[in-house]
Amino acid sequence: MGVVLPLEDSHPKGASIEPLVKATAAGMEQVNRVIVERTGSQVTLIPEVARYLINSGGKRLRPMVTLGAALACGYRGSGDVKLAASVEFMHTATLFHDDVVDESDTRRGKRTARLVWGNQESVLVGDFLLGQAFRMMVEVGSLEALDVLSAAAATIAEGEVMQLGTAKNTETTEDEYIEVIRAKTAALFSAAAEVGPIIAGADRSVRAAFRSYGTNIGIAFQLIDDVLDYGGVSATLGKNVGDDFREGKVTLPVVLAYRRGSDEDRAFWRRSLVEGGTSDQALEHAIALLNRTRALADTVDRARHYAAMATDALAPLPNSAAKAGLLEAVGFSIRRAS
Amino acid sequence: MGVVLPLEDSHPKGASIEPLVKATAAGMEQVNRVIVERTGSQVTLIPEVARYLINSGGKRLRPMVTLGAALACGYRGSGDVKLAASVEFMHTATLFHDDVVDESDTRRGKRTARLVWGNQESVLVGDFLLGQAFRMMVEVGSLEALDVLSAAAATIAEGEVMQLGTAKNTETTEDEYIEVIRAKTAALFSAAAEVGPIIAGADRSVRAAFRSYGTNIGIAFQLIDDVLDYGGVSATLGKNVGDDFREGKVTLPVVLAYRRGSDEDRAFWRRSLVEGGTSDQALEHAIALLNRTRALADTVDRARHYAAMATDALAPLPNSAAKAGLLEAVGFSIRRAS
Repeated sequence: MGVVLPLEDSHPKGASIEPLVKATAAGMEQVNRVIVERTGSQVTLIPEVARYLINSGGKRLRPMVTLGAALACGYRGSGDVKLAASVEFMHTATLFHDDVVDESDTRRGKRTARLVWGNQESVLVGDFLLGQAFRMMVEVGSLEALDVLSAAAATIAEGEVMQLGTAKNTETTEDEYIEVIRAKTAALFSAAAEVGPIIAGADRSVRAAFRSYGTNIGIAFQLIDDVLDYGGVSATLGKNVGDDFREGKVTLPVVLAYRRGSDEDRAFWRRSLVEGGTSDQALEHAIALLNRTRALADTVDRARHYAAMATDALAPLPNSAAKAGLLEAVGFSIRRAS
Repeated sequence: MGVVLPLEDSHPKGASIEPLVKATAAGMEQVNRVIVERTGSQVTLIPEVARYLINSGGKRLRPMVTLGAALACGYRGSGDVKLAASVEFMHTATLFHDDVVDESDTRRGKRTARLVWGNQESVLVGDFLLGQAFRMMVEVGSLEALDVLSAAAATIAEGEVMQLGTAKNTETTEDEYIEVIRAKTAALFSAAAEVGPIIAGADRSVRAAFRSYGTNIGIAFQLIDDVLDYGGVSATLGKNVGDDFREGKVTLPVVLAYRRGSDEDRAFWRRSLVEGGTSDQALEHAIALLNRTRALADTVDRARHYAAMATDALAPLPNSAAKAGLLEAVGFSIRRAS
């Protein structure tokens, strides 16, 4: 264990997700098999709907975090696979429910399940996945892991409710927004990371380190997603750009642009996000304001802060391929925006 | 109200506390008078002890924040003076109690009151000041302000208790440490700022903006204090350097240096902070490790993140001398470390 240098050095520009993919490849193959098995049901609609979203090309970063955390703690059992699959199911369940709550029409460039099959179907398949997630956790038999993941499930729901309050509220402060994503996004990353050391029987301080890693990579990840939704730092109109804008979502780039803008700018944001005046022309103007106020670049800067915290959290662990993969994933989460 | 540019531009290197001092000068004169009046008591020991610390050269930043916030919201009454004095009393009370809890021997370069008069006297004079603070708040008659300040009093105590858990625990994570100072230091700054808009009758979003300003300048301020306790970014042994180290306090610079260090480094930190091996030679080695791991420079970077949040929080308010003073105070809180 040598001296670990901070973010700037340890995450060269080429930071990639590949080392984590490689370190967890064996486990992820089993996770993917479990996912297919556990989406099976006599009710044929369920596998059809569930797999529509599950197979739509997510990176499966969360289950990789669980497997990587377990490996980095020297775990050699098989419980990590089911916990990782549970985490992915919990994530997918929230996507189903989110799309209904947000009345979203597209997700990852595809029509949302609620448009293809209906809102009720989406809600119920989400519930089915949550139920399956809990069954798998129970099978693993770790009460501590069950405690952490079920607390996360409640926190995520709280975060979604909090977001109902901030959505379309252009006066949202940065703290309020960070609280929302801490609950809505970071809580699951945090739990995904913490169950690794839990089943490995690691001590309190190692659990705290992974909890911190998960929380902070989760916040960084969400902030970069917010930037990508406007096309990245060098924002331009393009495919999949502007979903948040069209849904009236007040994300951190908007919080900053709104607060830093002129009265006229603020009237524009209210008109667009609150009253729903979101034409392509309006989106173009929004992107111009985001650039002028440096809101996108500074959101990336804010994300870097959380990324640095995630990196420092894991520093004391012994070196391993899994740890290196988890650390590079932090750099990767930021690099996506540039 | 023009476009407000982010931190780098709005806080030139010369950021100073002077604009806030000037904007609040008239009110602070009254605050200082109230402080003298309300430390009076038939029990002559009380004014003697209370004034020993109150007159020991603090900047009185917190009451200036209250006055500045009220002014920035257009307040023209006189309730802000008593609330500002309450805030300073609450702050002084916690210093008395802290010195007893931490068994500190010096504060602001002077012997602590507990050494001059005793521990029991320090605790009780702290309680007296807290009582006087609440009486003044009640006199102002704003239940909302009373609610915010009394909640802060409870949170500060919670933060102190949390700190008992992190003190001498070198495994403390950055998140855990930030939670401690969010409660111990930032909660009072947050309340100090929020009571301004409250008595000015400002709306919810303005209150949220000041709460956010206070919380984040409070965190930034504490992190820079932590750096200054090791002599600043270009750390050197000097007067008033190393108090935290000698008391075994695990502050953010130590959290980072510990996590980034080698096994040998970590053994040194445990030996020094947990077992109390804190000679001048040990302090010199500690400073060398803090520099080698860039822990001090990166703590300043972390502080900048919170400073940027504080600045953005106030951006939408109409321009005024008070607002400008509050914003420059953010830059000042950071500049102290360089």
